Amino acid sequence: MEILGVFFKFILSFALILIAARIGGEIAERYLKQPAVIGELVAGIAISPFALGGLINDPIILNFAAIPTVNLPAAWGLGGLPPDTEFNVMEIISEIAVVALLFVAGVETNVRAFLRQGKTGALVAVGGVVLPFIFGYFITMLFYPEAGSAGWLFMGAVLTATSIGITVRILMDMKRLHTKEGTTILVAAVIDDIIGIVILSVVMSVAATGAINVLEAIRIAIVGFVIWFALIMIGVKFHKRISRFVLTPFKRSGTMPIAAIIIGFLIAYLVTLVDLHPVVGAYAAGLMFAATAEKEEIIEKTRPIMLFLAPFFFCFLGMQVDVPLLAAGAAVAGILIVLATLGKIVGCYVPARLAGKLSHNESMIVGVGMVPRGEVGLIIAGVGLTMHAVSMELFGVAVAVSIVTTLIVPSMLKPLFRRQVVPASESEESEEPPG
Amino acid sequence: MEILGVFFKFILSFALILIAARIGGEIAERYLKQPAVIGELVAGIAISPFALGGLINDPIILNFAAIPTVNLPAAWGLGGLPPDTEFNVMEIISEIAVVALLFVAGVETNVRAFLRQGKTGALVAVGGVVLPFIFGYFITMLFYPEAGSAGWLFMGAVLTATSIGITVRILMDMKRLHTKEGTTILVAAVIDDIIGIVILSVVMSVAATGAINVLEAIRIAIVGFVIWFALIMIGVKFHKRISRFVLTPFKRSGTMPIAAIIIGFLIAYLVTLVDLHPVVGAYAAGLMFAATAEKEEIIEKTRPIMLFLAPFFFCFLGMQVDVPLLAAGAAVAGILIVLATLGKIVGCYVPARLAGKLSHNESMIVGVGMVPRGEVGLIIAGVGLTMHAVSMELFGVAVAVSIVTTLIVPSMLKPLFRRQVVPASESEESEEPPG
Repeated sequence: MEILGVFFKFILSFALILIAARIGGEIAERYLKQPAVIGELVAGIAISPFALGGLINDPIILNFAAIPTVNLPAAWGLGGLPPDTEFNVMEIISEIAVVALLFVAGVETNVRAFLRQGKTGALVAVGGVVLPFIFGYFITMLFYPEAGSAGWLFMGAVLTATSIGITVRILMDMKRLHTKEGTTILVAAVIDDIIGIVILSVVMSVAATGAINVLEAIRIAIVGFVIWFALIMIGVKFHKRISRFVLTPFKRSGTMPIAAIIIGFLIAYLVTLVDLHPVVGAYAAGLMFAATAEKEEIIEKTRPIMLFLAPFFFCFLGMQVDVPLLAAGAAVAGILIVLATLGKIVGCYVPARLAGKLSHNESMIVGVGMVPRGEVGLIIAGVGLTMHAVSMELFGVAVAVSIVTTLIVPSMLKPLFRRQVVPASESEESEEPPG
Repeated sequence: MEILGVFFKFILSFALILIAARIGGEIAERYLKQPAVIGELVAGIAISPFALGGLINDPIILNFAAIPTVNLPAAWGLGGLPPDTEFNVMEIISEIAVVALLFVAGVETNVRAFLRQGKTGALVAVGGVVLPFIFGYFITMLFYPEAGSAGWLFMGAVLTATSIGITVRILMDMKRLHTKEGTTILVAAVIDDIIGIVILSVVMSVAATGAINVLEAIRIAIVGFVIWFALIMIGVKFHKRISRFVLTPFKRSGTMPIAAIIIGFLIAYLVTLVDLHPVVGAYAAGLMFAATAEKEEIIEKTRPIMLFLAPFFFCFLGMQVDVPLLAAGAAVAGILIVLATLGKIVGCYVPARLAGKLSHNESMIVGVGMVPRGEVGLIIAGVGLTMHAVSMELFGVAVAVSIVTTLIVPSMLKPLFRRQVVPASESEESEEPPG
């Protein structure tokens, strides 16, 4: 009975995290007009073991109930890990959730438009990645010398990735998704995310080996981009065969979208064999199916799975923020927020203006629109925490940067949009942002 | 890196189980014209650690990677458990899956028709429960005296519950769902499942305390039925308020069905506080929402979640069947299959003929239609295994009974239907069975 009690407590924890996430997401969207992900994160901070969860005197319910890896049976072969390495059961559900999230985000991408407008987008993305990465790396080095190169690299990586979900939501709300600047942001944000998750794979290998191996980093970056590009091209070139041989056989039993997401999970694992993070594979698998005729049906049936699981991921991430430590890191967080904002605006403005031939105001919209850090930055911070490359304090800084850069953008974008002529034919978008 | 490797292996295991389940389900449905659940179970048997999984030399990938509870940190408070008690990480996902399955099964129930035709259905259900329970209890006592009263009770309980999913599927395929005998089977199967999961709660308490406490058993049975009936009546009487205060607030953000299933998870936990199994709460919560105007939307958006997770549950259940032990239990399984079949036919025929005033042939259809044991029987067997009240050998017997009683029914029903006059106005059903 008592062992069943453990399972029941996990079910309760699962339910409570989902409830907190939904309430937080609802408050953020309805009353604060912010993306749900912000509310989910803040709800996680509120119910974390360092806040409300700490009041519940139970190791499992809203607490992490970590199993020290030294306690695991010898057969698991983890004896060589340092004694402070812990194994968290709910983290597996969180991993499954983030794979589902990135898969659906991939399927929802307009791959063909993406390939057409790739050049300007790619330049904007690269421009927006370089400065924030450098700022993140060196500011962390300055204030947290003890974090070491792995910690500095993680914080650099956290600052790079623009949140597609948040950006799309703001553009949709302002009915600017299909303008020139809107498309540029969208394409750049997608490339940004890919750069971010490839950087994550590189940083992971650095954290694992403890040293920056330039050749190894280049190898992983190349493998990551090749896999990503290969799956996009397989989707675009062979979408008819994928429909016919992979998807259609499952249509009669009504499980075609389920088959697609299961393949996403398999590819998510397969990329880990070449040292990439599962989210790279999940995203690329989604992009592959995004080119098929079944795209809409896959989105319709896998979106509920994502909507069910993704809030768990973000809320669980928020739960890992140690609030008192957050106060300790506030000064550094403030500096990083300013630099992350300026770095993105400058880094994206220049290529948008020069290569994309956008006006000053349009280029400013692109720059400011790219400021929010979101899902991918948080995923990277979470991996850093799991690998012990990022301390609890640095993790709190990373979450604070993600939340604040998202909160400030709507008020910065509105005056810029006011200066623009509103296109008369602009209609409400049917696309919805992930997350 | 190595600790991340553990997470990646769990993702692989998760993906492989889902893939095996989907392939098994597809083969069963497409080529063998059997319910998908049979294919998912058999696929689980094939990839289990006792079969293909055993060939993979890894404790996590397709193996159970159990954590002995004696190894858990003292804070978990499980030190008092016997040293052979193990804690399986994937089992938590399996528990989440079965809660999702029962919730959706509940929402899909036609609660109002159910309340109208409840009397005959209830009598057929009770008739079909008594004989199989007695057979299961005493045959197990005869052949497995060492299993003790908890083991005998579990095997009795396993034989009681008719699979709604399998029965509905067969009736649908034969276009007989809306006939008098079809409705009777449907209502009786629902009550059967409720009886089964309430018996499960009773048996759990017996297994936990090690003795049959009649008063305690009656208390749990009453609490179980009261909660179940109360949630149905709350749904039927207050469905407008549930829509207005619980569901409508979440419509604007498009997460209403997600909010509903999250409430299902919460209720699933809450019922464990009064010693009921979570599936009782999940099912009753689903029944509550089944009376609301939002029913269809909830089904549409939670069904993909169930379709994604439920095969994991059944395949994982199949993985726990030890094939060599299955051969050892074959004789007992054979006896139980014959008695389970006869017990259901006789026990359901008599009330259908006497109380329901059905013809001989219609009553035979009801009796035979109630023969398949399915989801709930398997859930009960799985709980028995987790609680160590059911041995590996008995668990294999339970799974064999579920599979065989399902396989034999279509060929038994067809000649009975042929003797019936086909109603001319009968049209294809839109309802779909769960699982």
